Amino acid sequence: MFGYMGKILRVDLSKSNISEESLTEDACKMFLGGSGLATKYLFDEVPKGADPLGPENALIFMTGPLTGTESPSAGRYSVVFKSPLTGFWGQANSGGNWGVHLKGSGVDGIIFKGISPQPVYLVIDEGKAELKDARNLWGKGVSETNRLIKEELGEEFNVACIGIGGENQVRYACVINDLHRAAGRCGVGTVMGSKRLKAIAVRGTEGFEVGNKDVFDKVSKTNYDLANESMLKITLETFGTAMVANLVNVRGGFPTRNWQTGVFPDIDKISGITLAESGLLVDRKHCYACPISCGRVTVVKTGPYACKGEGPEYETIGACGAMCGVGSLEAITLAHNLCDDYGLDVISTGSSIAFALECYEKGVLTKSETDGLELKFGDPDVVIQLIHKIAKKEGIGNLLAEGTKRMAEKLGKGTERFAMHVKGLEMPAYDPRAAKMCGLAFATANRGGDHMTAYIEGPTFMDIPFLCVEYSKIEDLLVENPAETKVVKDLEDSLAVFDTMGTCKFMGMALATEDWVDMIANCVGWKFDVSDYRKLGERIYNLARAFNVREGLTRADDTLPKRLLEDPLPEGAAQGQVVAKFDEMLDAYYEFRGWDKKTGKPTPEKLKELGLGDIVNKI
Amino acid sequence: MFGYMGKILRVDLSKSNISEESLTEDACKMFLGGSGLATKYLFDEVPKGADPLGPENALIFMTGPLTGTESPSAGRYSVVFKSPLTGFWGQANSGGNWGVHLKGSGVDGIIFKGISPQPVYLVIDEGKAELKDARNLWGKGVSETNRLIKEELGEEFNVACIGIGGENQVRYACVINDLHRAAGRCGVGTVMGSKRLKAIAVRGTEGFEVGNKDVFDKVSKTNYDLANESMLKITLETFGTAMVANLVNVRGGFPTRNWQTGVFPDIDKISGITLAESGLLVDRKHCYACPISCGRVTVVKTGPYACKGEGPEYETIGACGAMCGVGSLEAITLAHNLCDDYGLDVISTGSSIAFALECYEKGVLTKSETDGLELKFGDPDVVIQLIHKIAKKEGIGNLLAEGTKRMAEKLGKGTERFAMHVKGLEMPAYDPRAAKMCGLAFATANRGGDHMTAYIEGPTFMDIPFLCVEYSKIEDLLVENPAETKVVKDLEDSLAVFDTMGTCKFMGMALATEDWVDMIANCVGWKFDVSDYRKLGERIYNLARAFNVREGLTRADDTLPKRLLEDPLPEGAAQGQVVAKFDEMLDAYYEFRGWDKKTGKPTPEKLKELGLGDIVNKI
Repeated sequence: MFGYMGKILRVDLSKSNISEESLTEDACKMFLGGSGLATKYLFDEVPKGADPLGPENALIFMTGPLTGTESPSAGRYSVVFKSPLTGFWGQANSGGNWGVHLKGSGVDGIIFKGISPQPVYLVIDEGKAELKDARNLWGKGVSETNRLIKEELGEEFNVACIGIGGENQVRYACVINDLHRAAGRCGVGTVMGSKRLKAIAVRGTEGFEVGNKDVFDKVSKTNYDLANESMLKITLETFGTAMVANLVNVRGGFPTRNWQTGVFPDIDKISGITLAESGLLVDRKHCYACPISCGRVTVVKTGPYACKGEGPEYETIGACGAMCGVGSLEAITLAHNLCDDYGLDVISTGSSIAFALECYEKGVLTKSETDGLELKFGDPDVVIQLIHKIAKKEGIGNLLAEGTKRMAEKLGKGTERFAMHVKGLEMPAYDPRAAKMCGLAFATANRGGDHMTAYIEGPTFMDIPFLCVEYSKIEDLLVENPAETKVVKDLEDSLAVFDTMGTCKFMGMALATEDWVDMIANCVGWKFDVSDYRKLGERIYNLARAFNVREGLTRADDTLPKRLLEDPLPEGAAQGQVVAKFDEMLDAYYEFRGWDKKTGKPTPEKLKELGLGDIVNKI
Repeated sequence: MFGYMGKILRVDLSKSNISEESLTEDACKMFLGGSGLATKYLFDEVPKGADPLGPENALIFMTGPLTGTESPSAGRYSVVFKSPLTGFWGQANSGGNWGVHLKGSGVDGIIFKGISPQPVYLVIDEGKAELKDARNLWGKGVSETNRLIKEELGEEFNVACIGIGGENQVRYACVINDLHRAAGRCGVGTVMGSKRLKAIAVRGTEGFEVGNKDVFDKVSKTNYDLANESMLKITLETFGTAMVANLVNVRGGFPTRNWQTGVFPDIDKISGITLAESGLLVDRKHCYACPISCGRVTVVKTGPYACKGEGPEYETIGACGAMCGVGSLEAITLAHNLCDDYGLDVISTGSSIAFALECYEKGVLTKSETDGLELKFGDPDVVIQLIHKIAKKEGIGNLLAEGTKRMAEKLGKGTERFAMHVKGLEMPAYDPRAAKMCGLAFATANRGGDHMTAYIEGPTFMDIPFLCVEYSKIEDLLVENPAETKVVKDLEDSLAVFDTMGTCKFMGMALATEDWVDMIANCVGWKFDVSDYRKLGERIYNLARAFNVREGLTRADDTLPKRLLEDPLPEGAAQGQVVAKFDEMLDAYYEFRGWDKKTGKPTPEKLKELGLGDIVNKI
């Protein structure tokens, strides 16, 4: 099969056993690869009700057919699992070069199950796989883990690993590759830690064949050139993802002090433009085959926040900055680097801290429970100290390490009203009260409160067109508009394909659906047109939904925190706004989806239409 | 009337007579102001068949209700006249501060008619108007004219004037205000020169009232902030309009060597990014009330192209650069400044030169006709010398000063196939073979081969959304797609409102229709909603079309140069492309417009629907 290595590794950690299995063309034609194919394995192999942190859960790393090709930004891999934060479908996704190494070593994906009796790591060297003792790595940070593994195996190995966050079962731990590229969300690192799997080190240089090489090379080159001369490149390379901060703030939707307002007064101290002009930025960095270089290489030279690394990204500036009321770019940069080294998801980390700060402000938490810390908004030192405590599970860190949903359950006293999560996953730094369609997208995303499932924040907050979907007037997306909910469905479907083919979603702002179809078709070598693309995305989306339904998801889970539905924003461009007609939007969305309006379940007709008739009786 | 001064000046240059006239609320409610209102005067007062360079032609300067307010980018004025290049509706439009001064002096607009027996200029000092002798200014460049007038009247006066291009009746002369801001197209400066009107100097500090001041101020501030934190601002301020050059080139549509190809090999020497990083850029400059500062203040310190001024803009880089095969940013900067000081439209100037270069390449022009110059593509010195010759009407300059349409008529020998104009107006630097919908827009624009009428180049070449219209998939705009021609109509209508309210079209990429409706309604104080906005734009567009029809325009005039319809692009991303199904697109466009498909005339029903029933029998 063109575009694939044809091989999946199965690793039973309980038995320390590794086996190989062939990838079937049927499965690839139905689910393509990456997140889509991994979801198929998850649905088939993880039984209903499995403990996310138990041996039955699977942790599935998967590349896509474009991963490692010359397509622009095609270096990504996905990880799929049952999430310990949400109890539903978990997915995380990362760039850098690790996915390219995995594929180059002759392997399309790895399915981990079981729990190792002692810490191990997996080495794949040009196709040869081996589990190795990781006791000397346990307790080490990401950078030290990388150093030790490379010292042992050689510099050419690329490492994806957990930090102590995953080891200590912080519920929102992540997996880090290339030192600073995170498969971040849903507690992927927590699952990896529960299996006592510290790292996966790969070396791979094997090439693979694409279907129509001449056409593929030409199309990829053209598309790379297009992306390389796009508005996206000009802005994202110059200012990084953090460029968005001002744009969101001016629309009154930059979550501040745990979403109590949407306007952060110190925005100019922490924006991407400030970062670009500050002395902190020393270089820009790109992932595999990407023309853009949105990565920031940064150094804080002196002072209490001295550090060296990458970032901060927009979401760190949101979660560890404005949400906590913190206006110090140096402190946020350190927070970002601590999260990277501890292996913590920056969004859930910052959000959990912000939630704790508001609990303290409201008197629900007091000094006696916070190890004597004064949990005040706006104090950068508190944020830094809490990150250490979370990763190490020290004192109050034990509570924060559970994430906002479980924190609110434990604290009670009405705190769940301002626990800012959906389905247990903390939300990104875009307030839907300022752009209503984002609220629907957060509420319906299969992985919980997430922006990368639909990325409708681009059109709404930044007026950036997504070339992979039709949408009409951006102003219609800013209000509750049932007719426009189709764009949420279309974006969810289309971006599911991005996680499946192995490419970066930012490219959705530079290249059109036809461009991707061109690259996929000429890579895999079978018929693949625009309607196949759209159907593929919808199929994958519905399969993940079916997984969630099987785990007990109902319409009631597709909702937003009360604060967003009922408490008007107090100031700024969206002053007075709430997400008012949420139910009407959800009705319309279900209608477009072909899902039952009472239960939120995909109808048998819809599943059959998508070629998923075999799962009708399983949900 | 809120938002207006209520006063129009009428200047009969033949009789040296100035009179005042009240603006009527009825006319303002029907045509709002600016280009729309001026078109109403033109239609009513310039008789069919009038000589564009004769006394019957009117030259109508008009501000809009937003001009001079706190709305973002609201400093513009329009000039409307019968064009000496096209023989149809002529319009030109400029930013800077001149329009704000005119309105501040108590005047909404000025209607010039007749021909002065000797050179004069008009002074309006806080509402007091006077014609003054301009014999000492005749023969002077724009900067010297400014200097002399300010020396006489005072530094506070703002001057709009012609250079020697307009005096010498170069057919594509422009009007320049603020030394470098051009009302550029359709030969507006030629008409001004034909009337022996050298300049209009204004001083005005009078304020005026808006309808709902509190709301208006708040809405304007919010919209200014939105624009100030937009992707548009980030890119356009950093790189200027010239940022577009790479983006168009990579799509294979950057007209090179008189549109013989769409790929310019020296693109990286002349792009906006290069300009921003070169030593040439010394400052950025903004028009009145604009958050963006897309203006470039530049200096070429030494060498043959030494100069000091502003620019180059994207269109200079296109017309005087790639179209002429010139890859010297220094020479293009000088060309831009020469055009500004001579008062020449850079697009028509560069295009006429490029056409002459191809005529020479093909042997239609020889050294005996070119004053001994070797008219070779790629020679910056030839371009510079020809600009001097055009402005001074020296030798071969006499031919080039007529523009490509008349040059081809004079030269014959099939040259009209590659005379790159529509209706006599030279086209901007976007090749429609690489983005088909641009071709339809060029063909149907009321002022001829123009990009600012629909500015569909934004969506097609740059993936920039225009918030004032609905459009669906950008990829559909790149091919011949009759269903998508509605977007051309919608953009034409919407941007007609921009020229009418007095704001910059770039803002259409940052603010939505609702935002403008908010500002207009709260400025004028009468009911004005989105449907009024759309109907206003369509009414104005149809009135200008009706003017053209009365002047003899038929469907046959709505077309493109044969080169674009028949000669495939030889290389690049759009290799092999022509605008193939042009007639199908035009049919569909007429259908959306409600125009007769055989004649191209607005139907009586359409005119009546738009409140233009009174002109049904006049066309």
